[in-house]
Amino acid sequence: EVGGFTEDVEKIKPEFVRSFQFENKLMPSTWIVIRIDGCHFHRFSEVHEFEKPNDKQALNLMNSCAVAVLEEIQDIIFTYGVSDEYSFVLKKDSQFYQRRASEIVSVTVSFFSSMYVMKWKEFFPQKELKYPPSFDGRVVCYPSSKILLDYLAWRQVDCHINNQYNTCFWMLVKKKGKSKSEAQHYLKGTQAKEKNELLTKEFGIDYNELEIMFRQGSLAFWLKEDKNMTHESKGCVQNSHKKEDKNMTHESKGCVQNSHKKVIVEHCDIIKPNFWEAHPSILDENLPIF
Amino acid sequence: EVGGFTEDVEKIKPEFVRSFQFENKLMPSTWIVIRIDGCHFHRFSEVHEFEKPNDKQALNLMNSCAVAVLEEIQDIIFTYGVSDEYSFVLKKDSQFYQRRASEIVSVTVSFFSSMYVMKWKEFFPQKELKYPPSFDGRVVCYPSSKILLDYLAWRQVDCHINNQYNTCFWMLVKKKGKSKSEAQHYLKGTQAKEKNELLTKEFGIDYNELEIMFRQGSLAFWLKEDKNMTHESKGCVQNSHKKEDKNMTHESKGCVQNSHKKVIVEHCDIIKPNFWEAHPSILDENLPIF
Amino acid sequence: EVGGFTEDVEKIKPEFVRSFQFENKLMPSTWIVIRIDGCHFHRFSEVHEFEKPNDKQALNLMNSCAVAVLEEIQDIIFTYGVSDEYSFVLKKDSQFYQRRASEIVSVTVSFFSSMYVMKWKEFFPQKELKYPPSFDGRVVCYPSSKILLDYLAWRQVDCHINNQYNTCFWMLVKKKGKSKSEAQHYLKGTQAKEKNELLTKEFGIDYNELEIMFRQGSLAFWLKEDKNMTHESKGCVQNSHKKEDKNMTHESKGCVQNSHKKVIVEHCDIIKPNFWEAHPSILDENLPIF
Amino acid sequence: EVGGFTEDVEKIKPEFVRSFQFENKLMPSTWIVIRIDGCHFHRFSEVHEFEKPNDKQALNLMNSCAVAVLEEIQDIIFTYGVSDEYSFVLKKDSQFYQRRASEIVSVTVSFFSSMYVMKWKEFFPQKELKYPPSFDGRVVCYPSSKILLDYLAWRQVDCHINNQYNTCFWMLVKKKGKSKSEAQHYLKGTQAKEKNELLTKEFGIDYNELEIMFRQGSLAFWLKEDKNMTHESKGCVQNSHKKEDKNMTHESKGCVQNSHKKVIVEHCDIIKPNFWEAHPSILDENLPIF
Repeated sequence: EVGGFTEDVEKIKPEFVRSFQFENKLMPSTWIVIRIDGCHFHRFSEVHEFEKPNDKQALNLMNSCAVAVLEEIQDIIFTYGVSDEYSFVLKKDSQFYQRRASEIVSVTVSFFSSMYVMKWKEFFPQKELKYPPSFDGRVVCYPSSKILLDYLAWRQVDCHINNQYNTCFWMLVKKKGKSKSEAQHYLKGTQAKEKNELLTKEFGIDYNELEIMFRQGSLAFWLKEDKNMTHESKGCVQNSHKKEDKNMTHESKGCVQNSHKKVIVEHCDIIKPNFWEAHPSILDENLPIF
Repeated sequence: EVGGFTEDVEKIKPEFVRSFQFENKLMPSTWIVIRIDGCHFHRFSEVHEFEKPNDKQALNLMNSCAVAVLEEIQDIIFTYGVSDEYSFVLKKDSQFYQRRASEIVSVTVSFFSSMYVMKWKEFFPQKELKYPPSFDGRVVCYPSSKILLDYLAWRQVDCHINNQYNTCFWMLVKKKGKSKSEAQHYLKGTQAKEKNELLTKEFGIDYNELEIMFRQGSLAFWLKEDKNMTHESKGCVQNSHKKEDKNMTHESKGCVQNSHKKVIVEHCDIIKPNFWEAHPSILDENLPIF
Repeated sequence: EVGGFTEDVEKIKPEFVRSFQFENKLMPSTWIVIRIDGCHFHRFSEVHEFEKPNDKQALNLMNSCAVAVLEEIQDIIFTYGVSDEYSFVLKKDSQFYQRRASEIVSVTVSFFSSMYVMKWKEFFPQKELKYPPSFDGRVVCYPSSKILLDYLAWRQVDCHINNQYNTCFWMLVKKKGKSKSEAQHYLKGTQAKEKNELLTKEFGIDYNELEIMFRQGSLAFWLKEDKNMTHESKGCVQNSHKKEDKNMTHESKGCVQNSHKKVIVEHCDIIKPNFWEAHPSILDENLPIF
Repeated sequence: EVGGFTEDVEKIKPEFVRSFQFENKLMPSTWIVIRIDGCHFHRFSEVHEFEKPNDKQALNLMNSCAVAVLEEIQDIIFTYGVSDEYSFVLKKDSQFYQRRASEIVSVTVSFFSSMYVMKWKEFFPQKELKYPPSFDGRVVCYPSSKILLDYLAWRQVDCHINNQYNTCFWMLVKKKGKSKSEAQHYLKGTQAKEKNELLTKEFGIDYNELEIMFRQGSLAFWLKEDKNMTHESKGCVQNSHKKEDKNMTHESKGCVQNSHKKVIVEHCDIIKPNFWEAHPSILDENLPIF
């Protein structure tokens, strides 16, 4: 018979085989966060000779992919990224993939990965992509806006701590000729304040003058198209995101903004209430969170 | 203070925020299957003008990415693919990502997606990749080899059923000038035998003479390097896979094989015991499964 | 050797065997509801000749066990019961059994069952308990107070719908001599209004005059010992619960209350805001829920 | 309107509320083990003045309840108990409660608890049950018979280790007048052999002569009614279990057996293959497990 499958087809028990698929639906009415992380990006950044401690173009590429994810998956309402990590927040009542964890995390990470490869040349016209990058992902739910903001604050504090450490570390290696293990040893147990002094005294670096994207990470979100948008956030650096021109080189102190565009990339404090108060539509809640 | 984070850092409660991460460890000593599926590949195949009902190069690209996954993730011991779907089998005692479902599925789908974009030009030198493909994934465990083989049989029967239908459908559209909905209507409710007769009588097509990859899908696995390898499988078509030359054009009836290469792509019946009896090392079990 | 276990002990792999235990921790900061249900209580109520449609003593026994659960498991802050079903609400931040679902549900149902058997004689001094009752249980989490109240409202509406139906059904059987299947057939598809008219016209029953416990179910909770407690709830029937005297026969219209006792059983509307506004300490939230 | 619920009924969203119920189905084709454990039985055994280190009647009561569980829940094919703990094994393909973990564990623990209270007087005619006992439970799946037997072996080894320790401990307290903390201190770090010697030399106790139920725990299972049943197990002590006479005082060395009765309680080694080879129908598998 065709394909020789006649008898075999009868033996197949699709219902039985399918019964092993298990539900992994996420709790309704909770904020879903998908966090993706580069796999072995230490090696990836070495092979591709990323600048240390931060490679601006590599971060811009990450940001550009994150913006594309926002544009692709409509239920994502906010995203925050630092280094090779990005957290995507789905709206509370999202029915994306009926809230099945595996599909949600896999499709997000898949789209991000494809996009990363496709956009590579745009951000690194001189560098060949030597091997395919991969990201892993996990998904967590938060039952309230307050705890969601705790999560995001945690990531931003982590960004700061890591950046301060990495800045010190690479200064010691690059400017003082220390080996990596010497630098590591040197910094072991030092407090934030001591690291700050090290940067000022030894290297003449005012930490707060470093690129804000390095210190505070990047966030992106859909900006509701208010007519009279005079953007309130103080101390933010914003990149509006044009579909035609995604290289995000437009950057300016003082919150310039092209109001007819949608997805906004910013670098600012998301721990303090200011940002969220200036953008109430992101979480779309009128509860007093703070 | 540095970054203005001083007070904020104190307020952060990483343990609390992390406590929302939930365990999703897969049961030990069970076969883990990761099944990935192209998202909206109907549209993707139209935009990229894939041949219908089967585009050989698109399938070769899928196979090539699957082989790369096998080479990348050592615990994957077998994989079976058809159309825009691929199932990866991890060995029973795999500790990959400590068996955490999200990470396993996301990193597999991420690597596959990156690879798909990277290899596109190799398989479609004349075609531009118009937008990033994405795949979703899910993960299922099977407690015994027997049920694992039931699963794989189910996928292969599905391959056969879909291919027979699609072959008829596209013949009606392309050769008989029927509209898609006419063709659909025409085939509704027809049995396997009737479809077979339609192909023979109307289009002079002997279904069993169609490309075996279209009828039976593709499988790939690590071949243990036996010295005196006279490969036993009857009726298989095999492609050995060289790292240096991944385009897999080497194809021959009759199971030729380069014994010093590792990952093998084949197209053959995995429902009957023959294949598994010829390759006992894949499942590495001496239980009488059949 | 002792016990003959010498060699065997070596072969045992506790870590391996334990690795099959899976986490089932409930999401932090969510309301945990344990709902228990009598197994085959249709038969149980027949064997023990419960009055139909409602057996007051059987319900008092259920309530008394629920009160005991509240006294035993300190994290339970509210409970609502109807018929052979009871829902127990744990406070949002409960760490009872580290929020492991199996343990939480099993220990609650176990204690309730033991208590039911122990208290049987107290409520049915003339009746022998013919066989051990059993209850099953499940656990659900609700991320906000609002949705928790939706859940409780659902149970109370269910109570009302079932009670109205059962009252009609048993009147038809007992007063009109209909068989059970005739009564069932008669009521099929009737609306609330029609059932109400049936009770009034055929049986001279004013539904709203029926015992409130039958119409609205029972709730129990810890009453904070306010000094100047003039209990505000209108239309509630309340039973204070003394450890010394658990037979709960003290019952009076108009909200009398012994302020130095703790667990209160009431029968009143928990769908409208009144009850919750009168007892803000139960949910202990100052969010505007309604 | 009836019950004053008219408007409220409309506001209720049962589907929404129910959507928070999560699936917790156990993997098909795996052995389900329900393990129940007495809660705070240290205190329970003191309050009820159980004999130390082992109270024979308390164990017989546990066994009797376990037998009742076997008789009640048909899918349970084997059970093993020690102290205040019992493990129930459901057959591999059980569809009990559609394999939902919460319901399976809760109904088992509930029935066991009710039965414990009901049977108390039968085993302790002179002692009043002072407060309701409670048990918690958890559920674990094992994908193969081999691992299931590993689990059971683990429990039996635990029984032996605890019993040896407890025997020494209580001898030191009762015969040597040591305080509990002195006894604990004395035994800290001692090996099996040393404990054995302590028993022999100090107390003239041959450990292997102690009651087998104390040393090896208790197991119960359905005995298939073979006609020519000459029970093969060597060294087992067996109690056949009559519905009419559940006090299980009939006990005799040498495997006497009333073949027309069903549930058998035995005390024997379940680590070695002998028991399983003598009772192949329990696991009903013809795979070579050992």
